[in-house]
Amino acid sequence: MMFDFSTIQFVDVIEFIGTFAFAISGIRLASAKKFDLFGAFVVGFVTAVGGGTLRDLLFGVIPFWMDNPIYLWCTLFSLIFVIIFHNHLIRLDSAFFAFDSIGLGLFVVVGAEKALNFGFDPWVAVIMGTITGSVGGVIRDVLINEIPLIFRKEIYALACVIGGLVFVALYKHSSLNLVIIEISTAAVVILVRFLAVKYHLSLPILRGEPKHNLPH
Amino acid sequence: MMFDFSTIQFVDVIEFIGTFAFAISGIRLASAKKFDLFGAFVVGFVTAVGGGTLRDLLFGVIPFWMDNPIYLWCTLFSLIFVIIFHNHLIRLDSAFFAFDSIGLGLFVVVGAEKALNFGFDPWVAVIMGTITGSVGGVIRDVLINEIPLIFRKEIYALACVIGGLVFVALYKHSSLNLVIIEISTAAVVILVRFLAVKYHLSLPILRGEPKHNLPH
Amino acid sequence: MMFDFSTIQFVDVIEFIGTFAFAISGIRLASAKKFDLFGAFVVGFVTAVGGGTLRDLLFGVIPFWMDNPIYLWCTLFSLIFVIIFHNHLIRLDSAFFAFDSIGLGLFVVVGAEKALNFGFDPWVAVIMGTITGSVGGVIRDVLINEIPLIFRKEIYALACVIGGLVFVALYKHSSLNLVIIEISTAAVVILVRFLAVKYHLSLPILRGEPKHNLPH
Repeated sequence: MMFDFSTIQFVDVIEFIGTFAFAISGIRLASAKKFDLFGAFVVGFVTAVGGGTLRDLLFGVIPFWMDNPIYLWCTLFSLIFVIIFHNHLIRLDSAFFAFDSIGLGLFVVVGAEKALNFGFDPWVAVIMGTITGSVGGVIRDVLINEIPLIFRKEIYALACVIGGLVFVALYKHSSLNLVIIEISTAAVVILVRFLAVKYHLSLPILRGEPKHNLPH
Repeated sequence: MMFDFSTIQFVDVIEFIGTFAFAISGIRLASAKKFDLFGAFVVGFVTAVGGGTLRDLLFGVIPFWMDNPIYLWCTLFSLIFVIIFHNHLIRLDSAFFAFDSIGLGLFVVVGAEKALNFGFDPWVAVIMGTITGSVGGVIRDVLINEIPLIFRKEIYALACVIGGLVFVALYKHSSLNLVIIEISTAAVVILVRFLAVKYHLSLPILRGEPKHNLPH
Repeated sequence: MMFDFSTIQFVDVIEFIGTFAFAISGIRLASAKKFDLFGAFVVGFVTAVGGGTLRDLLFGVIPFWMDNPIYLWCTLFSLIFVIIFHNHLIRLDSAFFAFDSIGLGLFVVVGAEKALNFGFDPWVAVIMGTITGSVGGVIRDVLINEIPLIFRKEIYALACVIGGLVFVALYKHSSLNLVIIEISTAAVVILVRFLAVKYHLSLPILRGEPKHNLPH
């Protein structure tokens, strides 16, 4: 039952879609910065697996992608896709956005669930869902030498936090089936992300102090 | 005796003060870069716990903050503090400086002591004290896309190194009580930091080579 | 036989040369950015040990440099070397290039071999060889707030990948002596690197999309 074949296949498809979308975003931003093919590949890979890698390092376990070369192949597929459809990517932007959001939903679920399975407190699970979903993009932006976008635009990371809270609440306080909880969580993440982009919702910005006020 | 209640409380207060000061510095610099509230929160948290997290990853143990939500609450408190006292922060700068230095002293002690407790060599303890005290600020500066300040200004990291050396020397070669050693170490860190800022002491800068000389 | 003294000494010399060359590159770039002496030391050290540190964290083992202070001493030696020979470094550039390439060859071998010894798949060994050889330079460039050079210039990381593939192929499918495999791998890395620089070989760059096309 745990290894119901159709479920695994479905999750695998979702995970491939998410990895693909994350890798595509890394590859496109890297190529805008004149990275070579190898550099674009690395940035794509790190965008896709960076969040889960930090999560697994914090848990003290071997990072997930070292067990299965699928993430590497998926990144290679993404690179070839960008090379071939280079001039048509913009027309695919809403598809990428959908894939990216689906991937985000899944990554949050995987991160939060792994934390609870390891016996960590619910608040750790929320953080781990958020790290899994958002740190890949942060590393991507550091590598291309830009300020991480998630700290400034739209409600990306907050969608992870909300998803993590939903997952933990349902997992601890409902009698729902795990698959239902997973799908509900991912749906909440996708919905928050969709609404944030559609209505240009963003968190308030702290008014900056004058520069000469700043610490150090 | 190991768990003397009044000592723990005192250390807890110090740790809260240090975490608060480190988080404040992250939040203020993030808000100067127009990070949203969530981004400022993340940068504050990473500034406060980043050094100890890298230390614990290097030791192969679960990072300290995953056991106790206090660091998260402390960062939230810091964020609210910055929001409320936004216009008055500059007047508090000497208080922040004092808190930051006290926190630095404690972080160095915690890092060096943990290394010795794990059986590492004294020189590893000095590095771990320095990492615990300074890496949070380095990650903060990478995230806000600035060159890390500690590599350029004042004797910040060197205060950690000196503190680490004092701790190791007293721990290995004196018969002093551990609490005395801890307090002496923290005092040395605070004193070095204070003198460096007061007298604008800084390490010499390597004269740069002309750009066309540079490797790669 | 495993601990043949002359072999160990030879590897030690190679490792010292590689560490020295990597540290020198970090120190020179840091000093060009006006880092103070301590900052230059840290950047040199991180350039030299950063790749192996990430590799060991991914493997879940204590980073190699925590067992042996030689890497610290070697970085200090590099710093003193840069201070003393400051005005003559450019004349030594071909020596540095040779040392850097030798070090790169060794680092790839060490990373790939460690992965196979831990029982990981061959493709993980290729990645670990590449990480060991190239991540130190990536962290260096992040710390000095530049876009990592290996993503843009010459065939640096690809030399690691090719070396890793050679190592894995010979290790798995030949009956050659391990030392021969190690030397052949390092030679391939050095040769690829040498040819790439001599003939200005580089990977193609993905044509960037117009900025308004980009994700997020």
